[in-house]
Amino acid sequence: MTRRVGIHESVSELFPPAWFEEAFGGSEPTEKSGGKREIEIADVGGDLDALSGLEVCVTLACEEAFLESDLSWVHSVQAGVDRFPLDAFDEQGIALTNSEGIHGDVVGETVLGYLLTVARGLHRYRDAQGERRWSDPDWSALGTLNGERICVIGLGTLGQGVARRAEAFGMEVVGVRRTPTPVDGVREVYTPANLERAIEDSRFVVLCVPLIEETQELIGPEELAAMEKDAFLVNVARGAVVEERALVDALEAGEIAGAALDVFESEPLPEGSPLWEMEEVVISPHVAAAHEGYADRVAAIVRENLQRQERGKSFANRVV
Amino acid sequence: MTRRVGIHESVSELFPPAWFEEAFGGSEPTEKSGGKREIEIADVGGDLDALSGLEVCVTLACEEAFLESDLSWVHSVQAGVDRFPLDAFDEQGIALTNSEGIHGDVVGETVLGYLLTVARGLHRYRDAQGERRWSDPDWSALGTLNGERICVIGLGTLGQGVARRAEAFGMEVVGVRRTPTPVDGVREVYTPANLERAIEDSRFVVLCVPLIEETQELIGPEELAAMEKDAFLVNVARGAVVEERALVDALEAGEIAGAALDVFESEPLPEGSPLWEMEEVVISPHVAAAHEGYADRVAAIVRENLQRQERGKSFANRVV
Repeated sequence: MTRRVGIHESVSELFPPAWFEEAFGGSEPTEKSGGKREIEIADVGGDLDALSGLEVCVTLACEEAFLESDLSWVHSVQAGVDRFPLDAFDEQGIALTNSEGIHGDVVGETVLGYLLTVARGLHRYRDAQGERRWSDPDWSALGTLNGERICVIGLGTLGQGVARRAEAFGMEVVGVRRTPTPVDGVREVYTPANLERAIEDSRFVVLCVPLIEETQELIGPEELAAMEKDAFLVNVARGAVVEERALVDALEAGEIAGAALDVFESEPLPEGSPLWEMEEVVISPHVAAAHEGYADRVAAIVRENLQRQERGKSFANRVV
Repeated sequence: MTRRVGIHESVSELFPPAWFEEAFGGSEPTEKSGGKREIEIADVGGDLDALSGLEVCVTLACEEAFLESDLSWVHSVQAGVDRFPLDAFDEQGIALTNSEGIHGDVVGETVLGYLLTVARGLHRYRDAQGERRWSDPDWSALGTLNGERICVIGLGTLGQGVARRAEAFGMEVVGVRRTPTPVDGVREVYTPANLERAIEDSRFVVLCVPLIEETQELIGPEELAAMEKDAFLVNVARGAVVEERALVDALEAGEIAGAALDVFESEPLPEGSPLWEMEEVVISPHVAAAHEGYADRVAAIVRENLQRQERGKSFANRVV
């Protein structure tokens, strides 16, 4: 039986939706499927006819038409599902699955890349290169990760991906999560109630929390003031920093030494933001998880769930 | 007995020579030394009188006056001693010690920083930041280190510092060194005679060799042509790349994908070099080992050797 997998056009905000053709391409025609491909890919948008008869719609954004269609299952290509009206999905009986669990290594590498950039001053050399300038760095500003303390806030897939690599660099890793059970490589796990204690002695603070109610505005003026003056904030979590203005103020007041920011309240970051021009701030356009193999990994989850569905088993990564 | 340690003015090319005051400051006046400091620091240059009576002269450059002075011991703040006329030191009976063995973690971190920069495209975001541009990266160019093969050429302190960290990132590590005995974390060790085989399947090639006769011009047009088209070259070794022109040619011809270069034939890199403007080339001003704790580490070697001298034992890190 050929099963139709819809790829919503919003995916093109990240990468070409055609990548899914190849990612699902392992399903060549078989005898069992009567000489047909087991999985057929359909490009879909908001058109109800196109959405009809799909086994699942794989998407970045939530299209209103999803709720009016006969869809029974939507898969989010991101881990975060804050774009989806969970109650409405629940009421309509539409299952929602997400892409959690596949970004730990990619985000872990991106974050370590930022930690090494700020510790070793690599961003300043790139600035100097643009001016054909052989810079003469201040060695007193050049440290290492080795021996420094890092606080990883949020110890899910992303946080663990960061923590494991930080430990391999000889860092003292502490972390914060709701349930303070032990985590491999993390010396001490604090609860959110003890957030200030967790961050106050850390040279690096990394935000890896999912965007849920409890994690919104986790870091505000008070938390920034509690950080060490030579500390760096790394943010790959949407909504966790109270507002960019508070961050600019803390940086200008010298309350923290710098930041590497991958996500922002409003994206793209407005051209007028003072953050762009702060030498000690490293900005990337929400790409911590961006990867040439992204579609393959998402497809692996969807494929697993297609098999589970066939066998009457419950979905992996089910949100609603 | 107070022992005088001279700090040569050339050290100021790297960091303030005064850092050594603090680095040796652990030697406060003691009873044993008759209420005097055990180690006294003297700033010296080419003046013979100032060089007279020193236990050791700690230096970056080799001053001609060293050979005319009554110095019996010179310590190089770098690992490389190519600036020193070894035969003349030998003839004059002046001992030369170097600073090998103390840069493995710092250089290892710098190199991993560059590997993550090119794998995750971080240099391009910094370029975009300078233009207040929210860039829209091509995800097909964004990989990870995880699962990629890296060839570390030179497996001394620096190479091992790189190899250990690369392995922690899930890379397949191979290496090259004269004596192909096993090295922790390195899957296969090749001899220089098999250099091409070592590099031809590697996504990343890192040059960590010391500057000695056998390692000069190790990588030339043929070796660059043998590398994969999507490979990156990382160079922290002086003299190992035949000439910058060959590298520019290989990059322009698409024989390799990019490079991170910390050292150059002529430093500073001439303003007219085409390397400055190649987006896929990341340039730093010979700072792979630069570190706020550099003087402390050098002082630890010198202090150890002062003790050895007192006990009539042979020097650690002796070159001549």
